[in-house]
Amino acid sequence: MYHLKVVIIGAGIGGLTTGIALRQAGYDVEIYDRVSQLRPAGAGISLWSNGVKVLNRLGLGDKIAKIGGQMDRMQYIRYTGELLNDIDLYPLIETVGQRPYPVARTDLQQMLLEAFPGEVQLNSKCIGVEQDGQSVTAIFENGHRATGDLLIAADGVRSIIRNQILGEQIHPRYAGYVNYNGLVPVSDDLGDKNSWSIYVGEHKRVSMMPVGGDRFYFFFDVPMSKGTEPHPDGIQVELTNSFQGWCQPVQTLIQRLNPTQTNRLEIHDVEPFQQFMQGRIALLGDAAHSTTPDLGQGGCQAMEDAEVLTRYLLTTNLGVADALKRYAAERAERANAIVLKARKRADQIHGKDPDITEAWYAQLQSEPPDAVTGAIAKTILGGPLR
Amino acid sequence: MYHLKVVIIGAGIGGLTTGIALRQAGYDVEIYDRVSQLRPAGAGISLWSNGVKVLNRLGLGDKIAKIGGQMDRMQYIRYTGELLNDIDLYPLIETVGQRPYPVARTDLQQMLLEAFPGEVQLNSKCIGVEQDGQSVTAIFENGHRATGDLLIAADGVRSIIRNQILGEQIHPRYAGYVNYNGLVPVSDDLGDKNSWSIYVGEHKRVSMMPVGGDRFYFFFDVPMSKGTEPHPDGIQVELTNSFQGWCQPVQTLIQRLNPTQTNRLEIHDVEPFQQFMQGRIALLGDAAHSTTPDLGQGGCQAMEDAEVLTRYLLTTNLGVADALKRYAAERAERANAIVLKARKRADQIHGKDPDITEAWYAQLQSEPPDAVTGAIAKTILGGPLR
Repeated sequence: MYHLKVVIIGAGIGGLTTGIALRQAGYDVEIYDRVSQLRPAGAGISLWSNGVKVLNRLGLGDKIAKIGGQMDRMQYIRYTGELLNDIDLYPLIETVGQRPYPVARTDLQQMLLEAFPGEVQLNSKCIGVEQDGQSVTAIFENGHRATGDLLIAADGVRSIIRNQILGEQIHPRYAGYVNYNGLVPVSDDLGDKNSWSIYVGEHKRVSMMPVGGDRFYFFFDVPMSKGTEPHPDGIQVELTNSFQGWCQPVQTLIQRLNPTQTNRLEIHDVEPFQQFMQGRIALLGDAAHSTTPDLGQGGCQAMEDAEVLTRYLLTTNLGVADALKRYAAERAERANAIVLKARKRADQIHGKDPDITEAWYAQLQSEPPDAVTGAIAKTILGGPLR
Repeated sequence: MYHLKVVIIGAGIGGLTTGIALRQAGYDVEIYDRVSQLRPAGAGISLWSNGVKVLNRLGLGDKIAKIGGQMDRMQYIRYTGELLNDIDLYPLIETVGQRPYPVARTDLQQMLLEAFPGEVQLNSKCIGVEQDGQSVTAIFENGHRATGDLLIAADGVRSIIRNQILGEQIHPRYAGYVNYNGLVPVSDDLGDKNSWSIYVGEHKRVSMMPVGGDRFYFFFDVPMSKGTEPHPDGIQVELTNSFQGWCQPVQTLIQRLNPTQTNRLEIHDVEPFQQFMQGRIALLGDAAHSTTPDLGQGGCQAMEDAEVLTRYLLTTNLGVADALKRYAAERAERANAIVLKARKRADQIHGKDPDITEAWYAQLQSEPPDAVTGAIAKTILGGPLR
């Protein structure tokens, strides 16, 4: 189809990537976001090769390579400091044809904003949508209305539009652990600058991934009850308590992080559902499928959404609703499987069943590296760009 | 990958479609052809929805819709005039999301030429290729040399470059029948203007498909030995002899066709092979996979080649030869299966085993229409754009 006007709600990774793709397809695109200033939700994100390929297709390959970290190996390390597995990532890259890029979220957002050839309207909270056979209209709290041939709800895990479409208030499901994340300068006493270091033990996890600008994107996972109060003396005290007895690089990371720029998040996902569209409205990104970060596929799946949606709009010709049905069917199958796989992985990592987590620790030590990279490649190659 | 220079040999459907796709991807593209004037090999071509989707993706959807015929039904008719099956094509269109477009080959070529933002260098017969780790060079009979990062051999069923790569002279295989084809104005005494009429009997076939400009693209298939001389008194006498006793529309078509603009072709294909690439050289279209026209997939497969090649070049980043390997693997699997399926179909239609052909005639009468459209949809949806 040609000459479509598209209204996108949400200027996160999904909304911006889709906006860029649809503009390149020749469509008119308007993007709205509720916030007064765009701020990413986390410090960093792993873009596996399936996400990077979408950016490559949009002509952003050189830009993502500049802000991405050079991640050549992944190392699993027992919390005591013993190396469990040292995995060369090149076989993975060879299988899938593109290296992954861990990036700082602010860098990714800046890149996407610059690549979108238009303006993002801020201070625009969409409070509802209306549609008929001809068009769809977003209604904003400030009284503005935006009408288009289709509307993309990329308004995140707390999506108002999703709730309207599904006719119920969706409540994210707590995954059972808190994630602390931030950025820290690369240094040898933290880890090898081209390795992804993952410390595991006691059902907790500490991770450092290289991102552009000689920094590590780090996170700590700590299982705890929902609604646990942050420690009154701050994140560093909380982490020091949680990681007593862990090896020196973990202690060094806790000391070195900037507590005012470290996020503390209770990790949630959303129970998968099928209805990724209704009429002229498509759900996209976290609004459609919200995953725990345990496969590093949240942003990547939003990017895949952008590619697949654009593809059906461009290449089929039976109307907007028909194209969105095709999009919804393909994406629900793919993204919902990722959500469930990530949930299983989260449980495995964080001791939901302690026996399974202990077995995983043992497996990490004995697993052939090509089994690890093969499993990651399988996830990557399940997407729309092989 | 970015900033590639691409040399394309051959300005047929495959070469031009690939040239357009690669230019849109931002690459430098030069196209060369041996002829002094571009002339399509046949009168018409059926572009099934998988081919149309590639053109849609390239922004040519409105243009192909203008030159394409409106084909709403297909009708199988016994040579005596009895209707065997009347198949509504809309269920097919609904399944795959895009209607097929039969087109006149000159219209298609003109459209592709206009869409290619560059010049095609004519009178340029490529007689060999040279490559090293850095580049590839086409050597032309006129002394010119063209160097690029990759070379696409879209030089057709008699491809010189293919023979060089495979290290042997490939001889097309005669499919056992002669095909006469041309264009004729639409008129009621020939058939319904929005139907594809197919007359079958005596192991022969007569087909009329609507194309743009109120014309039918017609063909006659007649099994005969290789090298049979055309009738000295011309094509109309030859066809009248072959189709004695066939019903009136067939006789009318024979009388009405323009014998000077009707092609008489011995139909060939090429035994499938795997090696669609070597280093920086990719085979594409008929040079890689040459099929009988019995599935109407020859041009469509060349278009799919263009989409897949462009996709891998754009989205992977391990070098040209690596991208071509991925292209070759994906395309050999898909296109070789089409070649063999079309060959089987050609044999079924043209009485290679008379019992099988008689069984097919019987099947045509009893087959549910959705079995026919379902089989076509399956072929279409096996391509890179679902």
